Amino acid sequence: MNQQFTWLHPVLVVLTVLAIFYAILNFSSLKRVIIGRPMRTKELHASHNKLFWLIALPILSADLYSSVAYGPESGITELISLGANAKWLIIPITLATILLLIILITSYIMGIIAYPNGGGAYSIAKDNFKKPLASLIASSSLLIDYILTVAVSVSAGIEAIASAYPAVAPHQTALSLLCVFILLIMNLRGVAESALVFAWPTLLFMLGMIFLIFYGFTDEIQHGFVQHATPVFGQFPHGLTTLLLLKAFSAACSSLTGIETISNSVPIFREPQQRSAIKTYIALGSITAFTLMGFAYHLYVKGISVDPNNTMESQLLSTYFGHGMIYQVIIWLTFIVLILAANSTFTGFPQLSALVAADRFLPRAFTIRGDRLGYSNGMIVLAGMAGLLIEAFNAQTNALIPLYSIGVFLSFTIAQIGLVRRWLKVRGNLWQVKLAINAIGAFITAVVSVIVASTKFIDGAWIVLIILPILVLISVTIRRHYDQVAEELRIIPEIMRPSTHHVVSIVLISGVHRVVLNTISFAKSLDTDVIAVYVGFDDDSIAKMKEKWNEWDAPCRLVTLKSEYRSLLSPLSRFIKTIETHEGRPDHVHIIMPQFIPRKWWHYILHNQSALLLRAWLLRHKDVVITTVPYHLNK
Amino acid sequence: MNQQFTWLHPVLVVLTVLAIFYAILNFSSLKRVIIGRPMRTKELHASHNKLFWLIALPILSADLYSSVAYGPESGITELISLGANAKWLIIPITLATILLLIILITSYIMGIIAYPNGGGAYSIAKDNFKKPLASLIASSSLLIDYILTVAVSVSAGIEAIASAYPAVAPHQTALSLLCVFILLIMNLRGVAESALVFAWPTLLFMLGMIFLIFYGFTDEIQHGFVQHATPVFGQFPHGLTTLLLLKAFSAACSSLTGIETISNSVPIFREPQQRSAIKTYIALGSITAFTLMGFAYHLYVKGISVDPNNTMESQLLSTYFGHGMIYQVIIWLTFIVLILAANSTFTGFPQLSALVAADRFLPRAFTIRGDRLGYSNGMIVLAGMAGLLIEAFNAQTNALIPLYSIGVFLSFTIAQIGLVRRWLKVRGNLWQVKLAINAIGAFITAVVSVIVASTKFIDGAWIVLIILPILVLISVTIRRHYDQVAEELRIIPEIMRPSTHHVVSIVLISGVHRVVLNTISFAKSLDTDVIAVYVGFDDDSIAKMKEKWNEWDAPCRLVTLKSEYRSLLSPLSRFIKTIETHEGRPDHVHIIMPQFIPRKWWHYILHNQSALLLRAWLLRHKDVVITTVPYHLNK
Repeated sequence: MNQQFTWLHPVLVVLTVLAIFYAILNFSSLKRVIIGRPMRTKELHASHNKLFWLIALPILSADLYSSVAYGPESGITELISLGANAKWLIIPITLATILLLIILITSYIMGIIAYPNGGGAYSIAKDNFKKPLASLIASSSLLIDYILTVAVSVSAGIEAIASAYPAVAPHQTALSLLCVFILLIMNLRGVAESALVFAWPTLLFMLGMIFLIFYGFTDEIQHGFVQHATPVFGQFPHGLTTLLLLKAFSAACSSLTGIETISNSVPIFREPQQRSAIKTYIALGSITAFTLMGFAYHLYVKGISVDPNNTMESQLLSTYFGHGMIYQVIIWLTFIVLILAANSTFTGFPQLSALVAADRFLPRAFTIRGDRLGYSNGMIVLAGMAGLLIEAFNAQTNALIPLYSIGVFLSFTIAQIGLVRRWLKVRGNLWQVKLAINAIGAFITAVVSVIVASTKFIDGAWIVLIILPILVLISVTIRRHYDQVAEELRIIPEIMRPSTHHVVSIVLISGVHRVVLNTISFAKSLDTDVIAVYVGFDDDSIAKMKEKWNEWDAPCRLVTLKSEYRSLLSPLSRFIKTIETHEGRPDHVHIIMPQFIPRKWWHYILHNQSALLLRAWLLRHKDVVITTVPYHLNK
Repeated sequence: MNQQFTWLHPVLVVLTVLAIFYAILNFSSLKRVIIGRPMRTKELHASHNKLFWLIALPILSADLYSSVAYGPESGITELISLGANAKWLIIPITLATILLLIILITSYIMGIIAYPNGGGAYSIAKDNFKKPLASLIASSSLLIDYILTVAVSVSAGIEAIASAYPAVAPHQTALSLLCVFILLIMNLRGVAESALVFAWPTLLFMLGMIFLIFYGFTDEIQHGFVQHATPVFGQFPHGLTTLLLLKAFSAACSSLTGIETISNSVPIFREPQQRSAIKTYIALGSITAFTLMGFAYHLYVKGISVDPNNTMESQLLSTYFGHGMIYQVIIWLTFIVLILAANSTFTGFPQLSALVAADRFLPRAFTIRGDRLGYSNGMIVLAGMAGLLIEAFNAQTNALIPLYSIGVFLSFTIAQIGLVRRWLKVRGNLWQVKLAINAIGAFITAVVSVIVASTKFIDGAWIVLIILPILVLISVTIRRHYDQVAEELRIIPEIMRPSTHHVVSIVLISGVHRVVLNTISFAKSLDTDVIAVYVGFDDDSIAKMKEKWNEWDAPCRLVTLKSEYRSLLSPLSRFIKTIETHEGRPDHVHIIMPQFIPRKWWHYILHNQSALLLRAWLLRHKDVVITTVPYHLNK
């Protein structure tokens, strides 16, 4: 084979993976072994299925905990422009991040106390602000962030694999897109996020990271806490600016994305629900804080540097364990947990968009459930947008991070302000404490939002800052449109009653055969004026048609139209106009056409094309009622 | 901006070009200046418009003559593996190609004598073979070849530009795809191939090439016919095999593609038509032969070599003229003429596919004319397939050539055999001579077909040899399906007459408002049993609906269905089954649904989604008649 066939390679890989994937999905016993019985959120809500908090912990933590894989790396990457001397700054930056984590978790615990049934930022804002602006900013920024979660998590997952297998590196974008596609198909088919089996990888990944950190400490106890690769500590490098420091902090803050999951899932806990959820929050917060700190510290001790082809996690792992079994296991767990984080978004995004669409701020189509009872449209939009981002940024996590986390912190801020308003109104037990906590939380997250938006503005945050107001504007416009339509459709039932109209039915025929028989029979059952219309391309065929019609005893009036350009549209359009303006001026012109329903899907290509074209054209250009009479083909 | 935004660059270029292009198309006076008044083939057929043969010549020659730009280059590229010593072989190979050209033109003149109204290989085969196999092989190979003409011509055109402007080189694929896209849009809008203004570039390109060749001779008269760059002549290089020689010959044969155009266009000539067409053939053949020979000879004298980033035409031009005015003019003319060759295919492919589809060997959709009276589906398929080929082969002409010209020679062979059969049957004046000419032609083209297919098999010809029989098989299957359907639909008009049926009409309602008023009014005009159906998601909404209905004086029977999963499909489906099996067993269940017709196109996103979903689902899964009652929104 020549060089021109190199394009076959990636295509074949993709096709092979897809084939395997489909085989797994369709071979149901294998499917059960691999992904377990799919469990719907509804089932989880059933009382016998309520979860003990320690079991709920791994299920709800993939989203937050997986961020550990890219957060600290992202922070160090920002610092590195100042040279190795700046690396120690990741320690105070991580401490600041952990402080922020503590504040956020405390605030979210207040949220759980206020809304035990789970209330996202959108619901909290809707409940506590009169005008919809606050809730729309919250929903829009969350929707944007869900899309970024998919893009960042999948890209980071593939980067982990590419670090272990350099051969994968040139295909990162394609593989990331493939992952998104597979997630979409799986979720359209209805694999629920909460399946218990999904808890295992997260639990194992947590254990793996904790093991890594403890192993790091034993290593440092053996070889010293300052090693030959360890950069100097405490020296302020030349050129350090507050801006740069804040930028690194903003990047590290991406570790905190996904923190809202537990507060949205309170109902899945065993009683006492609120207390269980709070326990889970504290436990997850502690593990995450410990992991962030330990991971960042070891990265510093080993003087790990930026390598676009090798993630820092992979570098640290190989420093300790080479490329053996332990390395492989932790890398694959990282990949799986990042994909699970992306997967959880395929529940979150459609649910939120359905909620917003139910309030008529997004197209109603987001509230439609597909065959398998998921909000398919939301999933498709999510996957499409995430795919575009991955394609545009070549699946580079570090390029995507600047767009990330603005949305999170913005919606955090709005939710907290909403809670502050709520405490002021509702009061209750210890309300001043709760108010103070949320006020502090709101202030801090507002400050972080501003820091993230401003320091990352040039690197990509501007994209979000442009899209966000546009999305809010679109939401408002959509709502206005729906309101106007509702107004237009309102009637006074007492005086406006249905009445019978004068209808002229036009049956399009192409000859005398079984389909025409069927269609004309239907038309004659309606008790309206029926006219059969035949469009011929030459005089000969028209004469033949007339003759056949007479042989058939002319079951109704026949009108023949001649088309010189083999086009159906123009003669038919002229005829409809004639009917509308001359022949009795009916209230409705009613076009009846047959539609073939073939037995095999590919036979659709062979039939109905002109009927479909005609139907689309008539609906757009004419005020006619269109009836499709199906004819089921045996062949 | 950071590096991650490099993706913006090509996207912006493409968008800019598209914007300019649309501006030209829509600014009609500018359009008239640039591309002239579009002239339909029909107009050309009108007698006052018949063309003098010298004027017809450039109009009909873009397809064949443009092949000069890649044919000889393709031949030399094959030889070069044996080193510079093999280069002289292009001279005998070109001579062989010219001999083939003469044989083909003589055969085609016989074709004109036999079918003065223009007969492509498909029509000739259909007319002279009883079984459809021969004509199907001819049509399928021609259709494949039309697709390749677009891919090869556009790629070669962009390669010419990339030779002049190396900055273009990395974007060759994207630009080629863009060209195909622009050709598609232009042709969908109805720019006729035969517009007189299209003759100018071809004429100028011919003059340019003739000038190039004469300039070459004066250069050789001045500097000697053997120059320091001239490779040795007449030495058989080490490793030369017949196979390689035949391979080079096959490649050079791609210069002969497009030779059939004149024979398909006899009716556009002024009387005496056949004589004019024959004159044109002889003139075009002479010019092409002269150009091929002169061009190949100068390439040899100047020892031009393969450079993937610089076409041989460009290299030869710059040897003589540098990169000045003359170089630029001829390169741009090359580009334009190659694009015109691709453009002519946008008439040929849709016409042929419509012809085959009219014989029911391809989906009927190919016979449908679009708004602007062109066969839109054929154009879209052509552009899509050519785009796929360009993408797959990265717009590399030399990689595409091995797939090319098998189809041409195969259809040539079939047409000639058809003519032989015709002379045997029809006889007439000098029939033995005509028969001999076509028999020799058939033999030679058959041999060339085998040579091309076998020598290029590994390099890509296998793709065509796999696709061709598949296409023939598909054609036969399609015809069988249409025949079976026709059989199934046949009725005995004397005994099978339309009769009135029992119809139950179901109106889907979502409340009491203007749209429901309109739809129920229509339903009540039909004199069938009308049932209004409301699908509610909870008891509350159902109770409210019932109350409203009674307030409205219950214009017809109301059935309320409850859906627990917010899905319309399953409750409705169950209800239809109940109607079908219990309530009077109607002949037709008739579903009436409203459809919003909004004023702005983007409002479609906000409406009708569930109606569309429902309609598609019902048509596929139920035997129900579906009526759409439009409601035109003011807002």
